[in-house]
Order: sequence, then structure tokens, then C-alpha cells
Amino acid sequence: MVEFNSDRHILALSGGVGGSKLALGLSHCLTPQQLTVVVNTADDFEHLGLHISPDLDTLMYTLSGLNDTSRGWGLADESWAALDALARLGEPTWFQLGDRDLATHLARSHQLKSGSTLSAVTAKLCASLGIAHPILPMTDDTVRSFIDTASGMLSFQEYFVAQRCAPETRGIQLQGIESARPQIGFQQLLRSPDLGAIVIGPSNPFVSIDPIIKLAGIAQQMRTSVAPVVAVSPIIDGDAVKGPAAKMMAELGMPVTAASVAAYYGDLLDGFVIDQKDAAHAQPLRDTGLAVLVVPTMMQTLEDRRTLARQVVDFSLSLSKRFDGAKAGAI
Amino acid sequence: MVEFNSDRHILALSGGVGGSKLALGLSHCLTPQQLTVVVNTADDFEHLGLHISPDLDTLMYTLSGLNDTSRGWGLADESWAALDALARLGEPTWFQLGDRDLATHLARSHQLKSGSTLSAVTAKLCASLGIAHPILPMTDDTVRSFIDTASGMLSFQEYFVAQRCAPETRGIQLQGIESARPQIGFQQLLRSPDLGAIVIGPSNPFVSIDPIIKLAGIAQQMRTSVAPVVAVSPIIDGDAVKGPAAKMMAELGMPVTAASVAAYYGDLLDGFVIDQKDAAHAQPLRDTGLAVLVVPTMMQTLEDRRTLARQVVDFSLSLSKRFDGAKAGAI
Repeated sequence: MVEFNSDRHILALSGGVGGSKLALGLSHCLTPQQLTVVVNTADDFEHLGLHISPDLDTLMYTLSGLNDTSRGWGLADESWAALDALARLGEPTWFQLGDRDLATHLARSHQLKSGSTLSAVTAKLCASLGIAHPILPMTDDTVRSFIDTASGMLSFQEYFVAQRCAPETRGIQLQGIESARPQIGFQQLLRSPDLGAIVIGPSNPFVSIDPIIKLAGIAQQMRTSVAPVVAVSPIIDGDAVKGPAAKMMAELGMPVTAASVAAYYGDLLDGFVIDQKDAAHAQPLRDTGLAVLVVPTMMQTLEDRRTLARQVVDFSLSLSKRFDGAKAGAI
Repeated sequence: MVEFNSDRHILALSGGVGGSKLALGLSHCLTPQQLTVVVNTADDFEHLGLHISPDLDTLMYTLSGLNDTSRGWGLADESWAALDALARLGEPTWFQLGDRDLATHLARSHQLKSGSTLSAVTAKLCASLGIAHPILPMTDDTVRSFIDTASGMLSFQEYFVAQRCAPETRGIQLQGIESARPQIGFQQLLRSPDLGAIVIGPSNPFVSIDPIIKLAGIAQQMRTSVAPVVAVSPIIDGDAVKGPAAKMMAELGMPVTAASVAAYYGDLLDGFVIDQKDAAHAQPLRDTGLAVLVVPTMMQTLEDRRTLARQVVDFSLSLSKRFDGAKAGAI
């Protein structure tokens, strides 16, 4: 493993599965003093009285190495006895609660009810799981994604898990986004002179990244930061690796391309990372003033994750605005 | 299985394990129209944000045939993945939460939080588990047993599970007992002209039966009922079959005998059922005006449970005060 010798800190913004793959790669290249992952909590929900934070869980399970890589979500060596028993009791089972996963939800819910913040709970869970790199919820307040669909307004989990993303998306509402305060460590990091780059993971722009960057003041802080902002495209060759990003883009009338994601983020970005299959998009994107890195972005192995992370870090730091004093991209 | 051909209804009062054994026997002799089990809820507690009702669970698991008979508590074929994971997260594990058992607590807690009464939740859980005989919590209000010990005042579960009954008992406090209203079906049954007998199971008199009979008006209703009140001794040959009843009696300065239990219940009883090993107590008890049945009361097999239940029912109905118009026992 190559050590990243820099006093610059990398701030990674992440949703669930895609973002956690890159975050795992970053955690192998960077020390805990060099990396902070800020995670979407707008798809958190209450289920059977439990507070469930799917994206935080995915990050924690991935960075602790406890995740199930073949299933693609949840914990390895998971069992389902509680879920079977819940079914027998007539309780809803559309959300697959594994026995071990349940312990996370129980601990989090109980600590939240006892007055802890989600940040404090997350720090405690991470410490218990041996995760050294800081994972921060985007906010300790409540923001919830709702999908405006042809079948009505659906909570994200209802749309994503219960209805398997079948309804057509007309729009996304982020309830509570106006009043939610960005997590304090997240805010401090954005203002830190040590911030070397902000990396937006290959996550769903609408339901994973928007909740983070639409928090009060965040987009503006990102635009005015000395640190370059680099996104990794969640779209490869016209499709999303996982999740409904591509389907949502099409339904929202956007071309389903990596370039379209860059256009969506707009002047927030200084750099953009696309897959080799999308190499044709590189020059047109560069023509808009964006720095573009073309590398394999499909992270299938751990080595893929490490390699991409290393490339993204090098690329991001090369865009540093410390030296030229101006944004590389638009505004 | 012999059917009990009577239009009289049996009301059984029960704590956990001992009471549930007799209740199982009764459920094999009596139809759901002939038996109601009222269960102690004073050892209910909150754990990790879950509402746990140990005695109701024991009754439900026993009557549904899902209980673990070798371990003596909880569910058969139980697994412990969630508990292992909770331990890893630094959460308390002194209360052994099985994966399947957890589903019961989750369902109950969620339904209570959603506004259901404990009675309604219990009825729903029983229906899901295929239990036809009515099981009622003694109250929908909160009563909690605290044990006044040499180590301070302990909640019942802290005393019973965490400290394994080690501290010396100086007294028992039933917090909330003055204001708790007896469960409505329980009250109605006590006033019902069809009530044939009230059977106090072989449960701990202090922490399982006292919480039921000390609810407002209950002891008086039992005394004035036309139905005889019969208790099965939890003490056999100077010891309790299970739990701290014998230890508590000794520490409270009572002789650890079946006769001592009868004396504790006092004028509430019309009849008392003792084991053959305690046959010497029969005549002295009869001399106090109490009807006494001497039979094997150690319920090891299902057949033992059925036989004892049948004998207790026959004995109880033989004491009916409908015909002589007066209590067989004291007052």
C-alpha cells in the first residue's frame, strides 16, 4: 500500500454502495488524519421503532471489512432469524433486517433516544467496529428524501426498497433541508486551511449527494474553498453501476451520460473523473473548463478501489487552487 | 385429552415459568372459552429501548409450544447473532436477547409506541403465534417490582438476571401499584357469574402474584367472589422449583415451607394444593379451615402438567361457594 505523503486532508462525500467503494479505497491510501467521509443521511428512516441509517451502515460495514461483498449490502455471515420471527408476528419484512445488522440499529436507536447526537453515535459505533477513519453524518438534524412519482410521493426507502424503484420519478424533495445544520466537523473541515480536496463519490447525485451539498451554506463553501472539488461519475457507459441513478436521470429528462452528471453539478466542480468507456466525453467536458481524468472507474476488486482512490487523490491535488489563486473551473 | 365439561370459567393468575407450566396443563384441559390467564407485568422493563415483558413472553412461548424446554426460558431453536453483534458494539448483554425473541420485543415495542395497549399487543402476538386461550396482562398501566436489598434498591431484572438473585432481600416495592388499573377483561371476569374458580399458579408470591392481587380492588373482589380461590404451592419440600422464592422467604424471615405460602396468602385462599412431599402440612392447614389437596405438583412432563391441571380444576370446582353460599376458608 502506497502511503499518501501530504499534509492535505481529503473530504469525501458519499452515499451508500458506490461511495463506500471509493471511500474504502481512500481509506487504504490515506491515514485517518488525511481522510474524512461525510455521509448522506437523507435516506435514514424509522422502521419498527428503529432509527436506520442505510448509508452510514454501508460505510461502517465497508470500512470495517464486515460487509457482504457478494450480496452487495449488509453484513457478511448474516442470519435472518429475527426477520423470520417478525414475519410470523405479522410485522413488515420489506426491509431486510439481518440479525447482526439489527444490533447496529438497536444500539443507534437506543443511544439516540438517550440523547446522543447521530454524530456521537456514529463515532461510538465506528470505534467499536475498529474504524479509524472519521465517518460523519452530513447533519445531526433530520433531512428526508421523498420521491415524487407517478404513484405519489414516496419516502426514499418506500421507493427504493419496497417498490424497487419501479415508479417513475418526477422530482425529489429533501424535507428539512432548509433548517438542517451541516455537521460541525464537516463545516470545520470545509473552512480548514488543510483541506486538500473535496471528492464527490460515484453516488446518486439526486438522493445521495444533493442532500449533502444542498445543506445550508455547503455549496457556497465548496465553491469558495481553496480545495478543488472533484466528482467521480456514477454513470459508466450510459448506466449506473448500482441503484436508480440512470433510471432517475432518464425520467427527469436528462441524457444518461457521465457528461450529464458533470453538467448537473455545474460550477461546483473543478474536476471530473470518468470511465475509459466514456473517453469520448472528455474533450467536450474539458472545453467547458473542467479538468477531466479518464481511468477505469468500475471498482470490482479491492485493488480497483485502491487504484482509483490513488488516482482520484493525485488528480484532485493537482488541481489545487492554492497556487494559482483561482478556480480551475467555471464561475 | 379429557374435555372439561363445565360452563364455569377458570381464571389463572401466573408469573413466568412455574405459572406457565400449570397454564399449559390448563390449556390442554380447558377450551379457550373456559380459561383466561392473567399474567404479571411488574417485571417488565425497558432494555435497549425495547419493552420486554418476560412473564407474558414465557406464557406466550409456552402456550404456543415454541418455548425451549431444556434451557427453561426463551424460544427453542434460538440463535444469538444479534447479541454477539451487540457485545461487539459495547452494548449491555446481561439480558440474553435471542434473535427470534428480539422479534417479539421489537413488535411489542413498536406497537406500544404506535399507541396500542399492552392488552391489544398481547392479543395480536398471541393470535400470530396461534394461541387460542386468552392471555391478559394484569394491567395496561405501569407497575414495576423493585427489590430492597443489602446492595440497595434494584429493579427486578437487575436483581434477577444481572445479579442472579445474589443480594439479600429486605423487602419488595411495587412501584405504581396504587394507581394501576386492573386490566378490563380481568375485572370483568372477576365479576362474571360464570367464574368457576380462581387458580393462583405455583409462582413467586412476592414478585409474581402480589403485583396481580395487590392491584386496586382485586384482593377484595377475590375474597367476595362466588368463585373459590385456590393456590398451587411454589414451594416443594422446602425449596422453590425455580427462581428466588425460597431464598426470598428465608431472607424475609418466613419458614420456607408450603404452609408458609398459604399463611402469606391468608384469607384470600379457599383451597391450597401441595406436593406429596409436604403431606405432613396438610392437616395443620386443614385445621385453619383451608381445603387442601395433596398431589404430585412437580411438573416435569407435559402429562404431569395436564394431570395436575385436571386435579386443580376438579379440586377448585369442588370448593364452589355457589351451593353453600359461604367461603370455605377464613375471613
